[in-house]
Amino acid sequence: MSNTNDHPMTISEKIFSKASGKTVKAGDFVLANIDRAMTHDITGPLAVDGFYDIMRDKEEKKVWDPSKIVIVFDHQVPADSLNASANHIMLRKFAKEQGILNYDVYEGVCHQVMPEMGHVRPGDLIVGSDSHTCAYGSLGAFSTGVGSTDMAAVFASGKLWFRVPETIRFEANGKLPKHVYSKDLILHMIGDVGAEGARYMAAEYAGSTIEGLTMSERMTISNMAIEMGGKAGIIEADKTTEAYLKERIPDYEFDPYWKSDEDAEYAEFHDYDVSDLEPQVACPHNVDNVKPVSEVEGTKVDQVFVGSCTNGRFEDIKIVAEMMGDEPVAKDVRLLIIPASRTEYMKVLRAGYVEQFMEAGAIVESPCCGPCMGGSFGLLGDGEVGLATSNRNFRGREGSPESFVYLSSPATAAASALTGVITDPRNI
Amino acid sequence: MSNTNDHPMTISEKIFSKASGKTVKAGDFVLANIDRAMTHDITGPLAVDGFYDIMRDKEEKKVWDPSKIVIVFDHQVPADSLNASANHIMLRKFAKEQGILNYDVYEGVCHQVMPEMGHVRPGDLIVGSDSHTCAYGSLGAFSTGVGSTDMAAVFASGKLWFRVPETIRFEANGKLPKHVYSKDLILHMIGDVGAEGARYMAAEYAGSTIEGLTMSERMTISNMAIEMGGKAGIIEADKTTEAYLKERIPDYEFDPYWKSDEDAEYAEFHDYDVSDLEPQVACPHNVDNVKPVSEVEGTKVDQVFVGSCTNGRFEDIKIVAEMMGDEPVAKDVRLLIIPASRTEYMKVLRAGYVEQFMEAGAIVESPCCGPCMGGSFGLLGDGEVGLATSNRNFRGREGSPESFVYLSSPATAAASALTGVITDPRNI
Repeated sequence: MSNTNDHPMTISEKIFSKASGKTVKAGDFVLANIDRAMTHDITGPLAVDGFYDIMRDKEEKKVWDPSKIVIVFDHQVPADSLNASANHIMLRKFAKEQGILNYDVYEGVCHQVMPEMGHVRPGDLIVGSDSHTCAYGSLGAFSTGVGSTDMAAVFASGKLWFRVPETIRFEANGKLPKHVYSKDLILHMIGDVGAEGARYMAAEYAGSTIEGLTMSERMTISNMAIEMGGKAGIIEADKTTEAYLKERIPDYEFDPYWKSDEDAEYAEFHDYDVSDLEPQVACPHNVDNVKPVSEVEGTKVDQVFVGSCTNGRFEDIKIVAEMMGDEPVAKDVRLLIIPASRTEYMKVLRAGYVEQFMEAGAIVESPCCGPCMGGSFGLLGDGEVGLATSNRNFRGREGSPESFVYLSSPATAAASALTGVITDPRNI
Repeated sequence: MSNTNDHPMTISEKIFSKASGKTVKAGDFVLANIDRAMTHDITGPLAVDGFYDIMRDKEEKKVWDPSKIVIVFDHQVPADSLNASANHIMLRKFAKEQGILNYDVYEGVCHQVMPEMGHVRPGDLIVGSDSHTCAYGSLGAFSTGVGSTDMAAVFASGKLWFRVPETIRFEANGKLPKHVYSKDLILHMIGDVGAEGARYMAAEYAGSTIEGLTMSERMTISNMAIEMGGKAGIIEADKTTEAYLKERIPDYEFDPYWKSDEDAEYAEFHDYDVSDLEPQVACPHNVDNVKPVSEVEGTKVDQVFVGSCTNGRFEDIKIVAEMMGDEPVAKDVRLLIIPASRTEYMKVLRAGYVEQFMEAGAIVESPCCGPCMGGSFGLLGDGEVGLATSNRNFRGREGSPESFVYLSSPATAAASALTGVITDPRNI
């Protein structure tokens, strides 16, 4: 697209202008056309119920465009309860009847599967009935989580109303020190602005540090935008994005239009120099309760979980494998490793890491959300402490309300799995 | 030991004579010394509660001999509920305080771990608080399932009373046809004598067919003795047993004493010529509802589960891998493959089968009981049909009471996973 707008725009304003068919600015209310809708096995059934409720008087109860909807089973796979198996049966039937693409129990976590399978492009407006749908901002899309009722309306009409959000810009410059990763950076930013720091704003992540990140590292950043309250977490598409997309979407062509104009209007700016950043840990029971690892070093952990849409890719797991080497998991620690998708699992497997982890006494499971949401397996009991590479540590998130969850990078997770206590990866 | 008894004896009579310190015969009531006691994460907590109840007036609440007790976490691993995590915490504490060996969430299914780790010898009297404890009969032990209350008494005293069982002898001769396995043979025997056919008897399996089986194949037979009501399911130790044990117990020496005397007294004899045996399937909702596969061929399956203590070893999974080759899992079928222990998993992994299965669209999980007991994951929903290599198909066993479970060999399971309907492996 070309820039014929009457005012300089953020990428979010550009996306909502395209989606609503008129030139808009932050604060405007718009009825926007949805490019892609994603739902999963927990929130999907309610959306389907809501859809049939909306369509109750129509003779033909068809979704607006089945090719624009994707269903992923990931939260309770393989079915961990009778409710889960009933939900799966219901969603399979819905997908088949409507002609919707359904990634069943073996494919992986929705936020990994969506970009990986080519369902995300820069400039897209995407909604998903999951709060971490903001992850696709890593590819220059405006993607955001919605409730099941909103999703029902999207299934029926392909449209949803939005207030075009203001944009909060995070600029990070400098080179991340050894053993410090994009997870540490986003945790630091969340700790800095707080859980409501970006409320209903589009967070934009930019600067030389962000530009230097791989797609996997960028996904970690965008994934956690919601933890600062962001409506979206956008990183403008560049050559790195282009290379990633060309592998997955044969007809993809890079469009330089999908970025914020130089003189676009921002609500806030936050600047970071990352060259001295320490590994960060989010402490119980809030994601914005962030501390440098040195402040919590030595805390006994019962379980370490490496996985989730935040940090469950090959690159993340490679960091763990390389840090662990031939060492076993510490006595009395359970190490759970769950690659975020089948594609990522195959890379992990072929690199020899599954063998290495199993030899070390870890548990490697097929792709799924695992303990991230505390519903499936790997639940913490009363008084237990978990360290996880996932994105939330709310009270009870990984099991008992009397358990404690810390969040960290894969490197800090690996170091801690080796020692049995929270450990600075720079000390291993 | 040497044979100085006053009457010819079955192996069961010999074991109870040793265990009670006097010469006994079937029908006698004895107080027997237990050689090994096994408990797991479902029945263990009740046994521990019972133990402390028995010991409530004692100052020192110590088990009779911690070196003779083994705890295995396998049914709900990694913890699939708050109850499970609480049970794990409680059993870990008990094991640590008492000095008991505890195989935690990563090691595998109890009935695989016990022989594999060298906790079973011919001539042993073993109790486990799990009905399939009869599996260790494959090594010439008398092993049987007991309730948690009995286990509590064993923890406290090391003794348990028994009525020395009569013996029912199953002789199988001839060579199993291609694609027909020991699972088909034991299903056929169970179908023949019925679920109560061996009630409170020691089942003895013998004959040239049994002698020709590997240890893994023998374990399948003994494992299912309980499905014909057997108190135990014994296969006399021979060179095959000796080779298996020497790998695992450095000081093991074969003792020819541990077999039934030639003129021992049997309650019943059953003879089988296996040379024409067809693949067998146990149909819903009873294990003794056994039919040749040809009678149920074409039944649509939603899920195929290869695993469990019955058929989750490398040999079983190799059969599946070889039958599947490069073919994908049939559309609309979930194939779950769960090796029975970490040791078996490593063999499966190193043979390239995990890669092959994941490529084929299967789900491979870390060692555990999986869907076998319908409690953890892989639950069937209303109306769904499962085919499993496990040992029970009671109504609701793998999930919904409105689902249907068929039991078969790994070969029949593989053939059915490829086609999506119950399929005779000889037709693939």
